[in-house]
Amino acid sequence: MNVGFVGLGLMGRPMALNLLKAGHAVSVWARRVDSVQPLVDAGATACASPAAVASRSEAVVTIVADAPDVEQIALGADGIADGAAPGLVMIDMSTIAPAAAKALSSRLAERGVTMLDAPVSGGEAGAIAGSLTIMVGGDEAAFGRVRPLFEAMGRSITYIGASGAGQVAKACNQVLTGVGIASVAEAMNFARHSGVDPAAVREVLTGGLANSRILENHAARMLARNFAPGFKSWMHLKDMRIVLDEAHRLNVALPSAAVAAQLYAAMGGAGLAEEDSVAVLKVFERMGGNPEDIT
Amino acid sequence: MNVGFVGLGLMGRPMALNLLKAGHAVSVWARRVDSVQPLVDAGATACASPAAVASRSEAVVTIVADAPDVEQIALGADGIADGAAPGLVMIDMSTIAPAAAKALSSRLAERGVTMLDAPVSGGEAGAIAGSLTIMVGGDEAAFGRVRPLFEAMGRSITYIGASGAGQVAKACNQVLTGVGIASVAEAMNFARHSGVDPAAVREVLTGGLANSRILENHAARMLARNFAPGFKSWMHLKDMRIVLDEAHRLNVALPSAAVAAQLYAAMGGAGLAEEDSVAVLKVFERMGGNPEDIT
Repeated sequence: MNVGFVGLGLMGRPMALNLLKAGHAVSVWARRVDSVQPLVDAGATACASPAAVASRSEAVVTIVADAPDVEQIALGADGIADGAAPGLVMIDMSTIAPAAAKALSSRLAERGVTMLDAPVSGGEAGAIAGSLTIMVGGDEAAFGRVRPLFEAMGRSITYIGASGAGQVAKACNQVLTGVGIASVAEAMNFARHSGVDPAAVREVLTGGLANSRILENHAARMLARNFAPGFKSWMHLKDMRIVLDEAHRLNVALPSAAVAAQLYAAMGGAGLAEEDSVAVLKVFERMGGNPEDIT
Repeated sequence: MNVGFVGLGLMGRPMALNLLKAGHAVSVWARRVDSVQPLVDAGATACASPAAVASRSEAVVTIVADAPDVEQIALGADGIADGAAPGLVMIDMSTIAPAAAKALSSRLAERGVTMLDAPVSGGEAGAIAGSLTIMVGGDEAAFGRVRPLFEAMGRSITYIGASGAGQVAKACNQVLTGVGIASVAEAMNFARHSGVDPAAVREVLTGGLANSRILENHAARMLARNFAPGFKSWMHLKDMRIVLDEAHRLNVALPSAAVAAQLYAAMGGAGLAEEDSVAVLKVFERMGGNPEDIT
């Protein structure tokens, strides 16, 4: 398929490479020239603007930081809408607010572009391995047409529902992972302050109802004091802010998510924004005295 | 082994039956005669007091509601300490505060009784199947001697550390399950209010990093609107109160657990105390309007 790709960051670059590997003809644009070169070396065509990318493509993937970036690329000067032939499918794989995704989809529809929201989970490792979880909202027929693109980038691909539904699923994912990591850190810290080996606690709990992928993976990284991202805590905070804003808009309470977001905000204040979310453990450790003093 | 059993409730009865099935000679006492009869029918010996149970036993299992009950059975008039031969091992499988377990263990040691704290997870179903997770604190040599008893009642048996360590592990278990169930309910309610099918969200999230045994089991029960216990919410609240009291004593913050406990407390106010913890979903539903009105 002739496919465009805009947004060649930590996630986008390996995803675009996987599209090339799967045999698709990939046109790319990025603000920074040095982001483009590795893709050109691998066989992609560099374009002068998102509009130029769109003019060569049946579908364009976007994956950028936040909703204003998506808007600029899609609807700004020389944006995707400016170059799109009628029926172009724009696949936004960024994590943005469900309401923003719906609004962009409506405005793009007026320009003849069908937008899908298709945020991912699985991180940089999943992007490289082509094993991302992809949650898709929008027109189901368009989803069917571009499914081969998703299959080149992800392993678990699910159509959730109408426009915005992919972002809602991603929002729920960020709630459960954000709360999960915070509560595991809290429990590990409690065990240590109680004079009990947190590794022994983690081990026994993985055998029971409390088990989760976060207890398996993230708790092990906490115990190994491996705080390298992974997923930077400021990005987790950004995603949780999106969810909380949406919840306020809907007048829906998310008390656990709100508490977890405050802990990730505290990480920023403690100089831990660039560390992985698992470093929330340090927030708990810094609250208290020296756990070695406590038995 | 000659083993005593005190506390023949929902959990204790099937656990005592599993000890009988494994070939142990079981002596029992309970406040209510009709709790004793099914065990006698299965081959157990009824005794007149905890002291009488202890006098016939090398080890006595206790599993009752809270610390004052354990204290009464162990150290009250005609309690276990009154009938114990030197070296008796008392195995308390109740969920009580780690500090209470340590204090009881010290007082029993003065009477020649070695106490292990060995709380369980896995619920009534695990008690019946003999598949409980058992977390043990106390003297390690005593743990080794009574291990065959644990093997008759549980599948995953872990020695955590010194006296109280089993209760600390159980406390961490209750934090992670309590917070986990509340956050899953919150996410499912958010999806529904966003106009998205919570079942589709649950399905895609089980494939990724957000997956947990609670997302697999408890979320499915929420979606099926199956709120029958299981594990009654007032018992979950009791366990979380124990953890929070202990955290206050240690000056350790448990913010996620504190929020979850408030939600379980709200369940009591909403007449949901006797329902399973998964009915915390109804607390979120009752906060908002009719989700069918929201798109």
